[in-house]
Amino acid sequence: MQAEIITIGDEILIGQIIDTNSAWIAQQLNAIGIQIKQVTSVADHPADIIVALTLASGRADILLITGGLGPTKDDVTKQTLAVYFDCDLRRDSKVLAHVESIFQRSQRPMLEINRRQADVLDKSEVLFNEVGTAPGMWVMHKEKPYIVMPGVPFEMKHIMTERVIPRLRQLEGRMPLWHHTMLTGGIGESFLAEKIADIEAALPHHIHLAYLPKPGIVRLRLTATGDDLETLKTETQTIANQLKNRIGEHFLADEDTSLEIVIRDFMQQRGLLLATAESCTGGNIAKLITALPGSSSMFEGSAVTYSNNMKMKLLDVKQETLDSHGAVSEETVREMALGAQRNFQVDYAIAVSGIAGPDGGTPEKPVGLVWIAVAGKNGVVTRDYLFGHDRAINIERSSAAALFMLWQLLNAEQGKHHRSI
Amino acid sequence: MQAEIITIGDEILIGQIIDTNSAWIAQQLNAIGIQIKQVTSVADHPADIIVALTLASGRADILLITGGLGPTKDDVTKQTLAVYFDCDLRRDSKVLAHVESIFQRSQRPMLEINRRQADVLDKSEVLFNEVGTAPGMWVMHKEKPYIVMPGVPFEMKHIMTERVIPRLRQLEGRMPLWHHTMLTGGIGESFLAEKIADIEAALPHHIHLAYLPKPGIVRLRLTATGDDLETLKTETQTIANQLKNRIGEHFLADEDTSLEIVIRDFMQQRGLLLATAESCTGGNIAKLITALPGSSSMFEGSAVTYSNNMKMKLLDVKQETLDSHGAVSEETVREMALGAQRNFQVDYAIAVSGIAGPDGGTPEKPVGLVWIAVAGKNGVVTRDYLFGHDRAINIERSSAAALFMLWQLLNAEQGKHHRSI
Repeated sequence: MQAEIITIGDEILIGQIIDTNSAWIAQQLNAIGIQIKQVTSVADHPADIIVALTLASGRADILLITGGLGPTKDDVTKQTLAVYFDCDLRRDSKVLAHVESIFQRSQRPMLEINRRQADVLDKSEVLFNEVGTAPGMWVMHKEKPYIVMPGVPFEMKHIMTERVIPRLRQLEGRMPLWHHTMLTGGIGESFLAEKIADIEAALPHHIHLAYLPKPGIVRLRLTATGDDLETLKTETQTIANQLKNRIGEHFLADEDTSLEIVIRDFMQQRGLLLATAESCTGGNIAKLITALPGSSSMFEGSAVTYSNNMKMKLLDVKQETLDSHGAVSEETVREMALGAQRNFQVDYAIAVSGIAGPDGGTPEKPVGLVWIAVAGKNGVVTRDYLFGHDRAINIERSSAAALFMLWQLLNAEQGKHHRSI
Repeated sequence: MQAEIITIGDEILIGQIIDTNSAWIAQQLNAIGIQIKQVTSVADHPADIIVALTLASGRADILLITGGLGPTKDDVTKQTLAVYFDCDLRRDSKVLAHVESIFQRSQRPMLEINRRQADVLDKSEVLFNEVGTAPGMWVMHKEKPYIVMPGVPFEMKHIMTERVIPRLRQLEGRMPLWHHTMLTGGIGESFLAEKIADIEAALPHHIHLAYLPKPGIVRLRLTATGDDLETLKTETQTIANQLKNRIGEHFLADEDTSLEIVIRDFMQQRGLLLATAESCTGGNIAKLITALPGSSSMFEGSAVTYSNNMKMKLLDVKQETLDSHGAVSEETVREMALGAQRNFQVDYAIAVSGIAGPDGGTPEKPVGLVWIAVAGKNGVVTRDYLFGHDRAINIERSSAAALFMLWQLLNAEQGKHHRSI
């Protein structure tokens, strides 16, 4: 069973935004055994949209259309689809009530163009959008589903997760397919590949291994296709167990999760508290942790000390330490971590100080040099890293490295994690 | 003059990588007056590639093709193009010498599949690739240029910049095109549309206005096409000035920038210092600011005080205030902002406390309620917001709202900003 994605919007064709929706949709559909035949991006031009729909409908069984559902004049998707499907628009009373409640809640006056958000294709079934004003729509046309969604990523994701994926799962004709994803950390992609080369080489023909690297972590995904879903689950679990044994301490979780989630759950279960002291990561570690619901049960907060003054004030780093070793040094991050642990009364504290770039490097301390310390039950562990020249990547890699060091210390001091495999 | 981009590779269609190449290519081409009609992503399947090429050649004057030029079995682009153009492959001696030198340098043994990297379409002119092993190719076919490039982003960018863009500039028939992007904040898309409805309605036919919303900000983009680039620049600037006057305090910048950048530049130029005190945003505001190079000149740091204990400890919030009004209250954010301003010795301090969700709401203080305070020269301004139920969006909107409040206070207290219009 094959699907095509059509993304609509001038902003993609002039390069103002990067289309991240298609990759996300492709991942979701592949996970339920629906392959993507083609992704097409066209402008907000009715004729181009209609040509793209016509061609895609000749190739695919399912069409997913995103973008161009906003209230302003440049958004033409709904009107164009009405032409393509030869139907009218009707104002949906449930959607209208929802849009009105959003405006009421935020105490903004509502205009006619906002009311038009409640207009839907009269051939469609509404895919209700709790998190925004533009509803999704499901249209059956010549026996094929057309799924229309807003282009705002979180709205699209909400509609996909809550409304579309459950319905697509019901469709007949999908080829059983199973993905088993694992999380590894603190080891590069090529080292990992070398470590598990023989397991990979011995994989049966219907099971495929993919490496999905991000700064500091690598996801491993086994994809199996076959006739029987239960068999595929058992087979991939057996291989996952082999990989887990081989990868050892770098194996973080036998599921598709994140380092922050693994740490949150571990600390939450044991009633442990965390704080961070961040210089070059600038609050990014705190932001990653507090993005998780329930993080307040294990996270006290962070001192983002961009200046030396704040390092002394909030973390009791000594003037003398800064003078003799500098802000980016083992001694400074050690004092930062201990200061955070003591002042915020937490069990564990992470401290990071580095030269994120692009400026500020010296021959002795080049851009990309980062010192990390983690204070725990029995003292402090420290380590230096040399990342690259890109500021954003350095911040991301420093954050991942710090969380991985915390994870290792938690395991060493608190006993192995209890996640079932 | 219109171009189409065809990206080839299974990894895009299974969602393993996000296609960032197309947006980059689109930006480069738009800048030289070549519009993108469509972007098409297909798998490494010869038939799909040939269909995509055939359809695109019927719509566009120029075709850009990326991906599938690697040495392994799954890369079929060159063989498929040879079929499409009805030509052979020839081994290019200059490319071969280059590939050999790369292997020599890295002391890796060279295999026959690596030598095949030097095979090029015999109808093509080689677009030499100094930074990788896969050469680009320029093929004239039925009077249209086909530009074939590797999919590795930095190799593609190198070939585009050094070889392709200079040649495309020479092509006749490019239609001058000009984009003028502006940044607005603190006003929703539909209000903005209403406010400028008459200006938009009066736009000449060759100038088009687009709204590009993100949580808390909206970009406005004027796109003009015509015969003379200088005229287009003048015309769009005149309209931008009208928009600026109409939009007033919600007009942030007459260029494509971000709220953080506008604030960093404003404060940097005036030697003003900032700190943040963050509860529900969890360090996100600090992270946004410190993502910018040079932010250390105006940003002291942040107290991410997730617990009441830390609010008292780092920001001198009174126990009594927390007891009688709660952590999410005007009184608490006021004390947080003043505490940050005083303790971190800064000119301006932002404080945010809210219920990000999904849990933790009460009838009086529902999920989505956020209090923000900004302390400045002449005291503190405070405001409450009621956002939605999505934790990630609440954090993003709270951050944008806080930065916008800071921007307003900076303007009120420090005089209007000096960005040229």
